[in-house]
Amino acid sequence: MAQDKKMVQDITSMDVDFAQWYTDIVKKAELIEYTSVKGCMVIRPYGYAIWENIQKILDGMFKETGHENVCMPMFIPESLLNKEKDHVEGFAPEVAWVTMGGNEKLEERLCVRPTSETLFCEHFANVVHSYRDLPKLYNQWVSVVRWEKTTRPFLRSREFLWQEGHTLHATPEEAQAETEQMLNIYAKFCEEELAMPVVKGRKTESDKFAGAVATYAIEALMHDGKALQAGTSHYFGDGFARAFDIQFTDKDNKKVYPHQTSWGMTTRLIGAIIMTHGDNNGLVLPPAVAPTQIVIIPVAQHKEGVLEKAAELRDRLKKAGFRVKLDDSNNSAGWKFSEYEMKGVPLRLEIGPRDIEANQCVLAKRYNGEKITVSLDELEAAAAKAMTEIRDGMYAKALENRANRTHVCTTVDEIKACIAENGDGFIEAMWCGEEECEDKVKELTGVGSRCIPLVQKHHSDVCVCCGKPAKHMVLWAVAY
Amino acid sequence: MAQDKKMVQDITSMDVDFAQWYTDIVKKAELIEYTSVKGCMVIRPYGYAIWENIQKILDGMFKETGHENVCMPMFIPESLLNKEKDHVEGFAPEVAWVTMGGNEKLEERLCVRPTSETLFCEHFANVVHSYRDLPKLYNQWVSVVRWEKTTRPFLRSREFLWQEGHTLHATPEEAQAETEQMLNIYAKFCEEELAMPVVKGRKTESDKFAGAVATYAIEALMHDGKALQAGTSHYFGDGFARAFDIQFTDKDNKKVYPHQTSWGMTTRLIGAIIMTHGDNNGLVLPPAVAPTQIVIIPVAQHKEGVLEKAAELRDRLKKAGFRVKLDDSNNSAGWKFSEYEMKGVPLRLEIGPRDIEANQCVLAKRYNGEKITVSLDELEAAAAKAMTEIRDGMYAKALENRANRTHVCTTVDEIKACIAENGDGFIEAMWCGEEECEDKVKELTGVGSRCIPLVQKHHSDVCVCCGKPAKHMVLWAVAY
Repeated sequence: MAQDKKMVQDITSMDVDFAQWYTDIVKKAELIEYTSVKGCMVIRPYGYAIWENIQKILDGMFKETGHENVCMPMFIPESLLNKEKDHVEGFAPEVAWVTMGGNEKLEERLCVRPTSETLFCEHFANVVHSYRDLPKLYNQWVSVVRWEKTTRPFLRSREFLWQEGHTLHATPEEAQAETEQMLNIYAKFCEEELAMPVVKGRKTESDKFAGAVATYAIEALMHDGKALQAGTSHYFGDGFARAFDIQFTDKDNKKVYPHQTSWGMTTRLIGAIIMTHGDNNGLVLPPAVAPTQIVIIPVAQHKEGVLEKAAELRDRLKKAGFRVKLDDSNNSAGWKFSEYEMKGVPLRLEIGPRDIEANQCVLAKRYNGEKITVSLDELEAAAAKAMTEIRDGMYAKALENRANRTHVCTTVDEIKACIAENGDGFIEAMWCGEEECEDKVKELTGVGSRCIPLVQKHHSDVCVCCGKPAKHMVLWAVAY
Repeated sequence: MAQDKKMVQDITSMDVDFAQWYTDIVKKAELIEYTSVKGCMVIRPYGYAIWENIQKILDGMFKETGHENVCMPMFIPESLLNKEKDHVEGFAPEVAWVTMGGNEKLEERLCVRPTSETLFCEHFANVVHSYRDLPKLYNQWVSVVRWEKTTRPFLRSREFLWQEGHTLHATPEEAQAETEQMLNIYAKFCEEELAMPVVKGRKTESDKFAGAVATYAIEALMHDGKALQAGTSHYFGDGFARAFDIQFTDKDNKKVYPHQTSWGMTTRLIGAIIMTHGDNNGLVLPPAVAPTQIVIIPVAQHKEGVLEKAAELRDRLKKAGFRVKLDDSNNSAGWKFSEYEMKGVPLRLEIGPRDIEANQCVLAKRYNGEKITVSLDELEAAAAKAMTEIRDGMYAKALENRANRTHVCTTVDEIKACIAENGDGFIEAMWCGEEECEDKVKELTGVGSRCIPLVQKHHSDVCVCCGKPAKHMVLWAVAY
């Protein structure tokens, strides 16, 4: 039990130092390890297994909606990056440049992709000729590089893993529908699979993706009241098509420009999971992406029959489709409890001699500590029911946290007072649509516009800043 | 039917120009597209789907044998690459160097990983302390970059996709066993799943991986008689561990160096599939990795009930677990036949009004053109049987091709005469073990040592080159 306490004490409390609490979890739950490559990290097996589960579910959702995976080069020649003006302005300052191949200086330097619009555009120009070639619904799972100054594991690193969807359509309506479809898929994934509530919205002009006509995003609220952008979906119109001369012959035999989208989600989601569900005992993982969904801990495992029964239950649960681990190591049961709490395993199954005698076991839910005793005859059904309850309970808890930290303000002074009283959180306030007011709110209060929620509320007739007629309700927050 | 002929004529015959035949297939079967990034390519949906199937099967085999996936950074600081002398000498001349981040010159340049031994070693040094931490059985699915002068799609490109396994063990015996296990898994995968016969062997000293104690490889023979290395597995001893100061405390509480392996397979396998099974009508895919296993082509599809029945068969076959496509487009049946022959779909199902009346359909095997008529009542079983027959038939055909192109020689003059008479192929000949003779054989005949097969044969007592006592039978060939 001494070991037990040590484990728990090893994590800084989130109320004492939220940033340190986060760093403790990513290290001690063995999600990542630092490297000598500044701003880059090793994603360790436990962290990578979460990403693999995210990939598997999202990839299935993409394929169900007709998308195909491809793989583009990781390098972009400088001249190709330069083709779309807004795009290059947005990305050039933060790319890594390859200037040497072996011992020779390259004639043209290449950047390591920060995103792949330019490569997809070049490819589309090569392979799209007729309306029969459309739509192109492509995605790729790769890593990208952005030369960030300050980095944090999962949240902001110089290299990160992501998927980037790139689609090409005959009409603006189809492209717009695709942009919205992918935003909805992202929201559904976050809410149903990660048990993480999100707000769907449109970014303001100043916060759009470099080269986009419109950027949509889903915004989640972390434990500390800061917002985290969990996914983005961009509508490009025909801007890239014009810059890259992508044209197709339509049904009337006319050459026209197609319309385009792109959308992405990243390993940032793992950071979002940690800061939405984690607690002072460690990680709390949603069942859908947990590498281990059920950990079996034998009690008094030296007693005859305990390990055999534990192994039998493991095999039964595996057969029923759960990801199960039996820890039959010599560590104490107390140490094991702490260890798998730290690792966020959704459900713990305890089985000891008295349980076996009574043909039962104990199931303990990680997210709220609830323990129930179930008959071994109904184990599979009880575990399935628990998984659903855990996902629903985690979602409700996160939703309640968000509600408690969401406030309506109608003046800049109210925003200041609200933050002083409640700390960080979402602030709903009306906005006139002028960038000047957006900047001023940020300057005066520290909160920036996260998005214009698709579901609007009317809190006032006038802008929170200038008092002129309001155009939109905006969600404001300090963001990761 | 005019279109039909056009398709076939579009591929250069492999007897006329094998290299052009290969290039025609990768382009016309829509596996890749060239880009403005020299030596890099776009892997298109049909090509990438083959890679996804390869990944899925191999990844399952790795996990079954206890391996875990991780993800290392794509960059290696120059000082880290320099730590192991042989390794840096082997790779430094062919890496891409990042020298700028945004607008700033980096203090230390970073290479884009050509392989990740150095990163894994740094990580192992950080996380391995005790014998309890061993073994570490890691793998990653990433792309790597080698600045090649001449490139060919899949076979040799500046960036390619691969998996790289890296494992760390307490004893040399365990590491050696791992090296052999992975070679066996690679061979099994190639033979059973890709229907591609391979020879397992050890590389000669001159052909070892940079930094390895021993390199093992599987070698396959292509249609044109050239050899292709399809996978490698390296035993490192404790050389890297010493260079990177990886030590652990053993059971006797002593600090000792662990022993290491690495092993890899790449998108090259797709090139191997093309050149092992392809023919003058296009690609021929083994069922295990074919994106579409069965294509359904309705005959006289305008006739009542044909498309409905075709859709019904598609749904039945999908439900039975096959990857199925129904082509109900307006293209002629002849055009469709050519198209899916080009794309190498293993099995074609033809269904027309007369078939429906007779409650039957026609199944045509891509690899040998064999057609059978089967009752619709037994469709699923017939398709499953056909898949097994196709894999077995493809393997037997490739094995026969290899046998026809494998020759035994006992002198250098015999090798010259053999090549003059039979063209390229595998040559089995004895070798004394001296690098001088290895070089001389290559210089005089053009064939290099591919490997020392694990299953040895005794063709002569003396070296094919110098006449001194022979140590090994070597497999010689011109290689990709």
